[in-house]
This record gives sequence, C-alpha cells and structure tokens, in this order.
Amino acid sequence: MKVDIREVCLRDGLQIEKPISLAAKVALLEAIVATGVREVEATAFVSPSKVPALADAAELAEELYRFPDVEFSALVASANGAKRAIASGLRSIEYVVSASDAHSMANVGRSSSEATAAIADVARIAHDSDATVEVIIATAWDCPFDGPTPARHVLDIAIAAVELGVDRIAIADTIGTTTPRRVSVLIGKLKPLIGDIPLGAHFHNTRGAGLASAYAAVQAGVTRLDASVGGLGGCPFAPGASGNIATEDLVYLLRDSDIDVDVDLDRAIDAAKVAQDAVGHELPSALLRAGDRILA
Amino acid sequence: MKVDIREVCLRDGLQIEKPISLAAKVALLEAIVATGVREVEATAFVSPSKVPALADAAELAEELYRFPDVEFSALVASANGAKRAIASGLRSIEYVVSASDAHSMANVGRSSSEATAAIADVARIAHDSDATVEVIIATAWDCPFDGPTPARHVLDIAIAAVELGVDRIAIADTIGTTTPRRVSVLIGKLKPLIGDIPLGAHFHNTRGAGLASAYAAVQAGVTRLDASVGGLGGCPFAPGASGNIATEDLVYLLRDSDIDVDVDLDRAIDAAKVAQDAVGHELPSALLRAGDRILA
Repeated sequence: MKVDIREVCLRDGLQIEKPISLAAKVALLEAIVATGVREVEATAFVSPSKVPALADAAELAEELYRFPDVEFSALVASANGAKRAIASGLRSIEYVVSASDAHSMANVGRSSSEATAAIADVARIAHDSDATVEVIIATAWDCPFDGPTPARHVLDIAIAAVELGVDRIAIADTIGTTTPRRVSVLIGKLKPLIGDIPLGAHFHNTRGAGLASAYAAVQAGVTRLDASVGGLGGCPFAPGASGNIATEDLVYLLRDSDIDVDVDLDRAIDAAKVAQDAVGHELPSALLRAGDRILA
Repeated sequence: MKVDIREVCLRDGLQIEKPISLAAKVALLEAIVATGVREVEATAFVSPSKVPALADAAELAEELYRFPDVEFSALVASANGAKRAIASGLRSIEYVVSASDAHSMANVGRSSSEATAAIADVARIAHDSDATVEVIIATAWDCPFDGPTPARHVLDIAIAAVELGVDRIAIADTIGTTTPRRVSVLIGKLKPLIGDIPLGAHFHNTRGAGLASAYAAVQAGVTRLDASVGGLGGCPFAPGASGNIATEDLVYLLRDSDIDVDVDLDRAIDAAKVAQDAVGHELPSALLRAGDRILA
C-alpha cells in the first residue's frame, strides 16, 4: 500500500508566519525536495495584502524549474488566482471551496454555493493550459463560526466537482477539530460519489488528533495526505500549538504501519530543522525532538 | 461502548519532575477527582532515592480517604513495594514487568524472567489483603536499549500473569515509539491468551502517535487506557516533548468517536491547568491551548 504525501510547509506552513526571504524559501525547498517527496504545494496566488507571507508567489514560481522531478501546485481561491498561477508556470492548481457559508464569506467574500459554481471557471482555465485542478473542500468537518458542517454540504461540493471534471478532490480539517471516527464516517459517504477520482485529506494537529485522523483516512481509502515538515503552520501567537500534521511524524507512523511513502524520515527531520531555523521559533514536531526509534 | 480512563498524572506524570509539595499533590488530586474519573494511579512505592518526586508515597496515601468514590492504585516494582503499598492502605496494586531484559536490568536490577516469576509473590501479597493486582508489561513494543521487543516476550509474561491469577493486564509503550498498526498486531496476539481478564494500555506521545495508538487499542479490544492531565510526564529537559497522552486530548477524541468515558472534558482541561501551575512549566496538551470545538 502506498500513500502520496504532499509537502505543504511552503504554503500552509508559512502562510501565517512573518514573511521570510525568497532565498530562505528556496533553501527550505531544497531541503524538502531532498526528502524524496514528489508533490509540493509551493505557494498560493491570493491577495498579497491578506497573506503577505506569500506575496512573492510569482518570484518563487520562477525558482521551481530547479526541481524538475517534483510536481508543484499552488493554491488559489478564485478564477483570477488560477490565471495568475497558470501565467506563472504552475501546472497543478488547488482550488479551495469552503463547505461552510460563514467561513466562505469570511475567507473569500462569497457563499459556498458561489465558490462551488466557480469550479467551472477554474477547471476551464487549468485544463485550457494542460494543468490539473484539485478541489479542496475546506471546513469539511467544522466551521470556526458555525460549528459542525453538515456532511451534505461536503458531498454537494464533491458531486459538483466531479461533474465539472476536476482531477482530484481533497477534504480539509481547516481548524483541526476532527477525530478518527468522524473522518471514517465522512469518507465513507464521499468515496462512493467520486468514483476513481483520487481523494486526499488535509489535517491539522490543533487538538492532538491529527495523526489519528490521518491514519483513519488512509484506512478509509484516502491515498493522498498533506503534511508540513516540523508541523509548521501553527499560530505564532500560541507557542507550541500545532498546525499541520508534521511530515516526519506522519512518515514515522506510516512506515511502521507498512504503508509506503516517497519521503525519507531522516531527511524529513533535517528539513524540519531547516524550517525551524527559517521561522526562528520552536516547531511542534515530535520526531524533531525525539528522533527515530531503534529499528533492530 | 465504554472505556475506563485511569488518571496517572500523580505517578507517571510527576515521576520525573522536581518534587512538589504534598499540599500541591492534594490540590491536583482534587482537580482530578472533579473530572469524574473513577480510577487514579496515586503514587509508586519504589526507591525514594531513585524517584524523589514520589518519596512521599505513604504520606499521600493517608490523604486518599478524602475521595471514597475513587479507586486508587499504586505502582510497585517488587514484592517489597507491594507490601509497603498494602501497609499504606492501597487496595489496587500495579506490578511492572519489563518485557525487555536490558530495560528490566537497568530499571530493577533483574531479568525479565526473574521479574515475571515474582508476579506470584506480588499477587499473593495483594490477594491476602483483598487487594487486586494488575501486571503492566513495560517496553511492550520497544526497549530503549535493545530496540524492538519480540512479541513472544510480551505473550509469555501475559500467560504467566494469567496462570498466577492476576486481576488485570496492561501493556505499556514505555518510551513512546509504537504506532497504530503495531498496537493492533500485538493486541490481536494477546487478547486470545488472556480470556476475559480486562486489558489496558498505556501510551506516551513522544513521537506524536500516542492518540492514534490509543484509538487503535480501543478498536482492537482494550477497555482501559492510562492518561495524564496536561500530558504531564514529558521529560523536563526537553521542553514541549510529550509524555503521557493528555487526558483531555484523549477524552475529546473518544467523545467524538461515540465512546463513553467518565471524565468530563472541561474539568479535565481545568485539572490540566492545575497540573501546569503545579510543575511550573508548559505542558504539551493540545486541548489546554485550543479548547473544545463548537459542538452545535
């Protein structure tokens, strides 16, 4: 069994950090690519004023030619963002649709249905340039404003995404609230609706259950997981609070569960150190502190 | 479905901390009992010079009469320790046997087989005083010196424990290395050998997989889990490193998995704050920082 890990430290990991230099990002990218990972979320083409840490998206995109063996993706929240990503040379577009109206309005100023309808434009823009498009369904379990997200909202977005010809679908635990059983239940409803479109999942470890949820997702049929070296992505104003699940912690768990990944554990720990130095504060990764176990 | 949580912050949690006062322990105990938990590991009757933080075991035992609805247990590593625990009024004895010779020698100065043979004495001492005895099999997955523990060692100790009439058996991931699949595999081998003797499990979150392992254990048939409020129990010399799985993080995961527990989540978070104040440094609990999700 194989799980594809997408490294998201450069986008979701850095998103709420103080901006770091392009050179520091390239150094982090080199460390990430050295782990063996085949998919990297490089940046987001969103409002530079809202997300100053990713304001250099176009500049970073120009550095990606250095790593020809890696599939780089960029997150967008609109058709306009998709155009910018394509114009910058990206060929893998992640388009986020929030399953909660309150979160969707707060985040992109339009309802969940409006964001869902725009999948058509994003998919056309991507496919016209031989790029792929993944729809990421945000707040798939809980909204920070409205609480639990009805599964129906998630399923409706997924059905629309399938009809509009997207290449991949992912579900995101945007605020780090879900737990293994809720993961299994939602995936059990979702899988039959999306046929053989690859399904990914994105977890935060905010309430300690990120790895447990990731493992439950794999057991339920997810073949793609997002993770961030060091667990980068925690709120800088809550020291030690976990953001994305840490790549090295995930790799450790999957390796010991006889699940293949492309990422080398020792190199992932090395990359976590680079990430920690780049942001200048302690990261929540467990393996970064504890290291691997004695294998034999 | 129901899982019994045993609160271990007073023993495993405090064990490697700088000693705190008896009054501080009683205050922590009050906060713990207020969570609704029915089983509390109060202390250990071991060498006071080796574990100065628990040197007040007999004094603490004298305070336990205040909480008549709670079952208090004490950890021992020898027949002599069991005698001291019984003499102090404890009626629930946990006897630790390490499944690894290297760890057993380092910890108690005798081999794993010698420690296993002593189950007979400990059980007799306990049963002669109408006390119960639980055998905790330490280093059940990995030894800090020898690496992976052969399952056969764990199973042999369990078989001996059953033959010698112990009341409960538990398996402990002493150094925080195990992961869900290894948990399922070991429990799958163990369960058929112990009949209807209740099986517990004890996990550390040292490599981030503590909750994932605990959930896997429950799925595999474990009905008892140890946990420590705040995740108290991490090494004080590795700031932020996780020790025991945090009671509140476990309760959150189990509640959202439709598994009943006696512990109230909000009260567990309150107790974690008391524990954090008592030891004077930040604890690794996730819920302590992030709080509960919006429920509806």
